[in-house]
Amino acid sequence: MYQVDLNSDIGESFGVYELGMDREVVRYITSANVACGWHAGDPIVMGQTVEAAAKNNVAIGAHPGFPDLIGFGRRNMVISAEEAKAYTTYQIGALWAFAKSQGLKIQHVKPHGALYNMAAKDEGLASAIVDAIWQVDKNMILVGLANSKLTEAGEKMGLRVAHEVFADRAYNSDGSLVSRSTPGAVIHDTDMAVTRVLRMVKEGKVEDINGKDIEIKAHTICVHGDNQQALDFVKKIKGALLKKAIKLESMKNFI
Amino acid sequence: MYQVDLNSDIGESFGVYELGMDREVVRYITSANVACGWHAGDPIVMGQTVEAAAKNNVAIGAHPGFPDLIGFGRRNMVISAEEAKAYTTYQIGALWAFAKSQGLKIQHVKPHGALYNMAAKDEGLASAIVDAIWQVDKNMILVGLANSKLTEAGEKMGLRVAHEVFADRAYNSDGSLVSRSTPGAVIHDTDMAVTRVLRMVKEGKVEDINGKDIEIKAHTICVHGDNQQALDFVKKIKGALLKKAIKLESMKNFI
Amino acid sequence: MYQVDLNSDIGESFGVYELGMDREVVRYITSANVACGWHAGDPIVMGQTVEAAAKNNVAIGAHPGFPDLIGFGRRNMVISAEEAKAYTTYQIGALWAFAKSQGLKIQHVKPHGALYNMAAKDEGLASAIVDAIWQVDKNMILVGLANSKLTEAGEKMGLRVAHEVFADRAYNSDGSLVSRSTPGAVIHDTDMAVTRVLRMVKEGKVEDINGKDIEIKAHTICVHGDNQQALDFVKKIKGALLKKAIKLESMKNFI
Amino acid sequence: MYQVDLNSDIGESFGVYELGMDREVVRYITSANVACGWHAGDPIVMGQTVEAAAKNNVAIGAHPGFPDLIGFGRRNMVISAEEAKAYTTYQIGALWAFAKSQGLKIQHVKPHGALYNMAAKDEGLASAIVDAIWQVDKNMILVGLANSKLTEAGEKMGLRVAHEVFADRAYNSDGSLVSRSTPGAVIHDTDMAVTRVLRMVKEGKVEDINGKDIEIKAHTICVHGDNQQALDFVKKIKGALLKKAIKLESMKNFI
Repeated sequence: MYQVDLNSDIGESFGVYELGMDREVVRYITSANVACGWHAGDPIVMGQTVEAAAKNNVAIGAHPGFPDLIGFGRRNMVISAEEAKAYTTYQIGALWAFAKSQGLKIQHVKPHGALYNMAAKDEGLASAIVDAIWQVDKNMILVGLANSKLTEAGEKMGLRVAHEVFADRAYNSDGSLVSRSTPGAVIHDTDMAVTRVLRMVKEGKVEDINGKDIEIKAHTICVHGDNQQALDFVKKIKGALLKKAIKLESMKNFI
Repeated sequence: MYQVDLNSDIGESFGVYELGMDREVVRYITSANVACGWHAGDPIVMGQTVEAAAKNNVAIGAHPGFPDLIGFGRRNMVISAEEAKAYTTYQIGALWAFAKSQGLKIQHVKPHGALYNMAAKDEGLASAIVDAIWQVDKNMILVGLANSKLTEAGEKMGLRVAHEVFADRAYNSDGSLVSRSTPGAVIHDTDMAVTRVLRMVKEGKVEDINGKDIEIKAHTICVHGDNQQALDFVKKIKGALLKKAIKLESMKNFI
Repeated sequence: MYQVDLNSDIGESFGVYELGMDREVVRYITSANVACGWHAGDPIVMGQTVEAAAKNNVAIGAHPGFPDLIGFGRRNMVISAEEAKAYTTYQIGALWAFAKSQGLKIQHVKPHGALYNMAAKDEGLASAIVDAIWQVDKNMILVGLANSKLTEAGEKMGLRVAHEVFADRAYNSDGSLVSRSTPGAVIHDTDMAVTRVLRMVKEGKVEDINGKDIEIKAHTICVHGDNQQALDFVKKIKGALLKKAIKLESMKNFI
Repeated sequence: MYQVDLNSDIGESFGVYELGMDREVVRYITSANVACGWHAGDPIVMGQTVEAAAKNNVAIGAHPGFPDLIGFGRRNMVISAEEAKAYTTYQIGALWAFAKSQGLKIQHVKPHGALYNMAAKDEGLASAIVDAIWQVDKNMILVGLANSKLTEAGEKMGLRVAHEVFADRAYNSDGSLVSRSTPGAVIHDTDMAVTRVLRMVKEGKVEDINGKDIEIKAHTICVHGDNQQALDFVKKIKGALLKKAIKLESMKNFI
């Protein structure tokens, strides 16, 4: 039997600013990456987000990002390993308190945006994030880009690691994501995206940008709740997975 | 036998900005209030501060403040009870992660600056802070101004509560601190300050601004490490306490 | 002949966070209060907002607020007069640069949210804001609540002052706004709101919460572009004013 | 006759945090780079710094940096050209208001830290900064690393440009600074540093890291007021310059 996790970034509102269709998307996913107030989110939003996830039986994860609210954590910053570790520790802790207040635990940690992308390629940064998780709680699962330096660092340390795949993105032959600036990087045909995901989950393979199969682990699929179109895709992919008897399950249950 | 705790705010440096003689004062105190990055402190500093406290056998406490770095958390802000609770939860959690990373626990929570002062007088704000601690961890001790709305709210909830006294401040007849703008509010004669503290600890009494005795619990004494003069006072008061066979002890051991 | 200015807060988006229907409301108003990055807005948004205002022939004003992005500048903060003056100076300057870059001038300064409300009642705070404007540029117009300490401070200093009125708010007998927590504070009947505004502009009078006429200057009317309903009201009030031959004009042309 | 400008970064204190010996160093320099609240400085500090500079007859410059207070603007951030332009515009404006309030003008703009270093090598970033200055005020002087992309971009645009040199840094053969991580990058022998500066000013030449002469314009020399040692070096270099009849002059007088 196959199983996979569906994760989405939620809790990205801030103060009066609302972002994302959290109440909708949380009904379809199995794991939620909750912004921790650095690139998005605020303490009020964090508490509400944890509550909403719990109500929908969705596992909670910390989603630490760069200290860059104005750039939504999407801009590369050159920080030291010590800083990366401390920033990750801080943000995990902040979310932990909201989970603990509601009798819940943090299931996983998934770095956000530029921190995620940089850690996928930078061993030092990856290790710093892994160190932070390891020292705070060895039971937390690290979520990173499949086949990346980040998942590699986590596995080396002995952390439970979830490889994340993207339905709508093309892959290079080394398993990394094709840069968004390259033609063909984003797959707009949702049927093709669904087909690719099914194969990643069932066969552990995906066709790279050059048309050759590469191996890929698909523990969790990244989906979005930014708008109605994104939401429709979540429903579609969920339906397709269930139809193929692939069980949707929070990653803690099978990692 | 008498015992009392000596607490001090540390970990208030931020980025390149250094503040306070942390390495010195941490050698004399029994409990440290660690800034959590909102009014002061940053993740790197937090980790180092927790480490320095632990090395000196000093118990660790969260020191949550208003989101006001530019004002060092000393400016009154009118926030809702929901916000106060969420902000306190967030900051406790952030510090928790650094303590947990080093195999330590948070002993206490002491609100900082304007949040401390406002909560001493405002029942709603006090309850919000108490709620936050209660829900995160019922074992954490609340530190508040002796005889204040804050300690009252903590006791009502069933939290362990440490009443804090100030050696160099005059008290009103209701046990509140005389406002700094009032003549006589600050006691500059260190001998008198020491004498007052000894009496607070041993007799549970202090002479108020009008010369009449009032009752006061003195579980913990607030001391400072801002400069050499403050440090000298810490040494002096510690010496006087030990001379009178008053044991200096982290509050968790007797609250 | 009668004339009046219609002002609205715009440029309140921040980073990825969008707020308000700026592109719509800017077509109906004569003066724009542009957020300066402290309670809302960011440099990219500021430049775009100034451009959008200019294209629609709308005069530009600085909208300085408290350093409280998380609270949208709506929470009271106790800051010193020196701080209020410096914060106002800073924010005026920041907007000035975007105006200057496009060959434009700042017409007015209107404090935002809690700063506006506090300055309406606090002479010291009002004077600090007035001092800031006076020293940066004596030609900038101060916009404040009609009949408030803020407009009074501006007039005393010799600044050009625009008294602002609210169509949908009830007034106390002293000309101050009835607190939102009091029943009847907000006028939901848009016809009545329009009628009141017309009378304020033409007769300089409005019926207070007790049903007695009070005097009020109505140089500029505050309108909103938060949502379609707010926008519909702007169109309605604009239509009513024009029908009564009241000229809509940027305040610099008649103050 | 020879002349040169001595510039230093000042106004880097923030809230309760004090940094640098501003009151001392401002007595020796001819141009001050004033932090604008993003990587350091705050509105109160900015006003005081402008005042202190003016009292000492020191010309004022804006010192815009990345939005990274926690990293003091020293960490590389990947921002778009549009962002760089807007951030520079914002910060110039903020300082402008404090200068204007005191009847002063901004003489120059010198990017800070990582923004300065990145712009020295990145044409797009350099052009964005130059665009910002050009549009705000064509009379402001751009200060950039001598022989860099930044000075090149300024000259191409037609701005007045001051080439900045460092007394204590080694140069590569292309005129760029030797990276601090390379042995020999920093010149610790103050006599040699002084000798090098004198030659840069009088001959327009400096020996590069390989011992060959390269051409360099030395309009302004960067000095520091971080500590007593730095201050002593400022005095020494000033004395040496005056002894050689090199006039110390704010750059606006000769650029």
